[in-house]
Amino acid sequence: MENRSLVTIAEHSKEKILYMLEMAKLFEKNPNRRLLEGKVVATLFFEPSTRTRLSFETAANRLGARVIGFSDPKATSSSKGETLKDTIKMVSNYADIIVMRHFLEGAARYASEVTDIPIVNAGDGANQHPSQTMLDLYSIYKTQGTLENLNIYMVGDLKYGRTVHSLLMAMRHFNPTFHFIAPDELRMPEEYKIYCKEHNIKYVEHTDFTDDTIAEADILYMTRVQRERFTDLMEYERVKNVYILRASMLEKTRPNMRILHPLPRVNEIAYDVDDSPKAYYFQQAQNGLYAREAILCDVLGITLEML
Amino acid sequence: MENRSLVTIAEHSKEKILYMLEMAKLFEKNPNRRLLEGKVVATLFFEPSTRTRLSFETAANRLGARVIGFSDPKATSSSKGETLKDTIKMVSNYADIIVMRHFLEGAARYASEVTDIPIVNAGDGANQHPSQTMLDLYSIYKTQGTLENLNIYMVGDLKYGRTVHSLLMAMRHFNPTFHFIAPDELRMPEEYKIYCKEHNIKYVEHTDFTDDTIAEADILYMTRVQRERFTDLMEYERVKNVYILRASMLEKTRPNMRILHPLPRVNEIAYDVDDSPKAYYFQQAQNGLYAREAILCDVLGITLEML
Amino acid sequence: MENRSLVTIAEHSKEKILYMLEMAKLFEKNPNRRLLEGKVVATLFFEPSTRTRLSFETAANRLGARVIGFSDPKATSSSKGETLKDTIKMVSNYADIIVMRHFLEGAARYASEVTDIPIVNAGDGANQHPSQTMLDLYSIYKTQGTLENLNIYMVGDLKYGRTVHSLLMAMRHFNPTFHFIAPDELRMPEEYKIYCKEHNIKYVEHTDFTDDTIAEADILYMTRVQRERFTDLMEYERVKNVYILRASMLEKTRPNMRILHPLPRVNEIAYDVDDSPKAYYFQQAQNGLYAREAILCDVLGITLEML
Repeated sequence: MENRSLVTIAEHSKEKILYMLEMAKLFEKNPNRRLLEGKVVATLFFEPSTRTRLSFETAANRLGARVIGFSDPKATSSSKGETLKDTIKMVSNYADIIVMRHFLEGAARYASEVTDIPIVNAGDGANQHPSQTMLDLYSIYKTQGTLENLNIYMVGDLKYGRTVHSLLMAMRHFNPTFHFIAPDELRMPEEYKIYCKEHNIKYVEHTDFTDDTIAEADILYMTRVQRERFTDLMEYERVKNVYILRASMLEKTRPNMRILHPLPRVNEIAYDVDDSPKAYYFQQAQNGLYAREAILCDVLGITLEML
Repeated sequence: MENRSLVTIAEHSKEKILYMLEMAKLFEKNPNRRLLEGKVVATLFFEPSTRTRLSFETAANRLGARVIGFSDPKATSSSKGETLKDTIKMVSNYADIIVMRHFLEGAARYASEVTDIPIVNAGDGANQHPSQTMLDLYSIYKTQGTLENLNIYMVGDLKYGRTVHSLLMAMRHFNPTFHFIAPDELRMPEEYKIYCKEHNIKYVEHTDFTDDTIAEADILYMTRVQRERFTDLMEYERVKNVYILRASMLEKTRPNMRILHPLPRVNEIAYDVDDSPKAYYFQQAQNGLYAREAILCDVLGITLEML
Repeated sequence: MENRSLVTIAEHSKEKILYMLEMAKLFEKNPNRRLLEGKVVATLFFEPSTRTRLSFETAANRLGARVIGFSDPKATSSSKGETLKDTIKMVSNYADIIVMRHFLEGAARYASEVTDIPIVNAGDGANQHPSQTMLDLYSIYKTQGTLENLNIYMVGDLKYGRTVHSLLMAMRHFNPTFHFIAPDELRMPEEYKIYCKEHNIKYVEHTDFTDDTIAEADILYMTRVQRERFTDLMEYERVKNVYILRASMLEKTRPNMRILHPLPRVNEIAYDVDDSPKAYYFQQAQNGLYAREAILCDVLGITLEML
């Protein structure tokens, strides 16, 4: 039997992405569907992430599944020196799906190779976080009515931001124009710019972040600029107040423009933005529930027709 | 739609309190009622409290709801600098109710203002703990057959004791006579004595704690005297063995008298008291289950008639 | 009413052991049976043990029960000085069964004496771990077709190994021949050798661990040799690579021989052994699910006939 793990969004074709969005749409209409009655979902968080864990656990519960797992890696057998392989094989004896977050890149891929039950990657180091990308895509699709031909502005830490990298790759099917807005130290890495060129994706780079810069945006994807990412703290002090979105900057923006953020935010979106109808980051988090219900069903072979 | 949050017991009228006790009584007859099937209850403990958390989680489960949440604040996004507002808005996307314990006074009130789903306050700093008060009231009602005209003796730390303050306020409807038994450093604060006067509540203060002191009690509400509450450690050493209830002190007490304690106890009730039929603190904890089932139903708009 | 707690496997007669294995067999055929619908199982881990906790929680969930509990003793009322008695009496108000792991020997026995609900001992210090023994017995029974007249080789830390001591005692009904393979510092304690003599159980002791030593084994029960067990670190350095099972050592072994290990392993079974059909430790862990479903049902009075 085929292993239906979700390790990276890059494995999904354009058709599969659109198919998953249709599933998410049905779960938004009715999130409580007991399609996973009798199933056990294990949530193994080797690195803490309350938001992602609660979202997956809600999805599992609303589908009628039961949840086991751990949120604190210190209280696990890993701390007794057990290998990831043994932990995964052990939990495979109990659960029908493993949702895992791990601090090492490649951990989810490796896990999917040592077990027959599906692995859902809930983040592996700086590498992939496909359920986040799926909810980002669903949020763009819902707010713009399409994924095609959009101006997507990415702001903040584009160097280490796992979510912007995954979104960039997933959007390759839909002819986007990207604008990368970042301080010099946190620019989009060369490999992703090469990726854009190879896939005929247009992009523009900016270091300034003003109302003029973002006037043409359909999607404004904000990310945190974390102090610890800077080697030069003088540079951090110089830019830390530049990449903050304020309500006053929204006046010139397009009516259809929506602001996304993977959350948690710290101060990169001022609180006066929350009241704008263009602020969409909390609804985006809610879309995570529907996207994750679709993912849990898909890896267990439940199809759109069965919903 | 009205937000039905439970932030403080002070919001409840006499009629509402008696109504909630009726609901609790029905849950005591049959605690397993799947009235919350399909609902998700989030238990967010920004401060650990195993007893309260397990009690609420049992209540949710016996009502057929599913539970998500965290018990360890260190493993949350709050530790990444996320505000309470953002955490509450995030969890509101997943859950139908939020039960929260927070170390800051006013946290539950604030949470109820930033979300549309009901908040149940499971303790905010030294401020309120309304589900504890409800189970205290239910325990008094069950053991005395009424809440009216009772002699209620409160013993121990009356200065910092959140539970005695809330109980005092909730009892204002029922013409109690209070006796406050505490060392000088931990006396009932002036504001609560003023509160009593304003509401025509009789009270007497004592510093000694003997069988004679408590001979007329209907309810003896014991609390912990914690060393860290004392600024003068000499004073602590002087009083620490005074406010301990021992079996020998029960002989002169009324037959209907019952001993309550919010638990956990340390040494303020000697173990030989446990075997007395007047010891009621473990049953009191069990009443917490029924009181909390009533609370979870009430905030979701489930009425007595629907049980 | 009889308290049906499971504190130690020594309480089980031969008939009861065989009866429990029959129950486990039925759960292996179909693990999802909602026999505990409406029940609440509390898992109280005063000492962390992810493997045992997840196994019990899966068993409870597959039986339709709901789970409450804690996995981190630091976040409990015990840390406020609450006694074990009070914690157990408190949780007894909420749950129908308590599954507990505690760092003190005798803790489960004591707990069973202060409550009316069944206690399932999930490990108390170096003392007992009866559900592990039950899954070991089930694994032996499944792979050998019988428990009678087997050659059982125990390897590694036989001094502190809780699982080997319990298994030894449970096997007394079935005429085993034991081989104890251990370094001098970790030999089987004198009391268990006396126990063997009293029950007419044959045993042989070895300090070497080679393919010749294990050629006649039906069951090879491996355990971890932990550095911290040695008072003499020179001795540890001398023996640490001796008690490691490698694939090359399996050639002379019997075709029916199977390798067990309570897990987690560190390095005492080389990874090249995993691919051998004689490696059974991961299936053994899976048997834990069925054995624990049988245990949870049995302590609640659900009989084989009701399955």
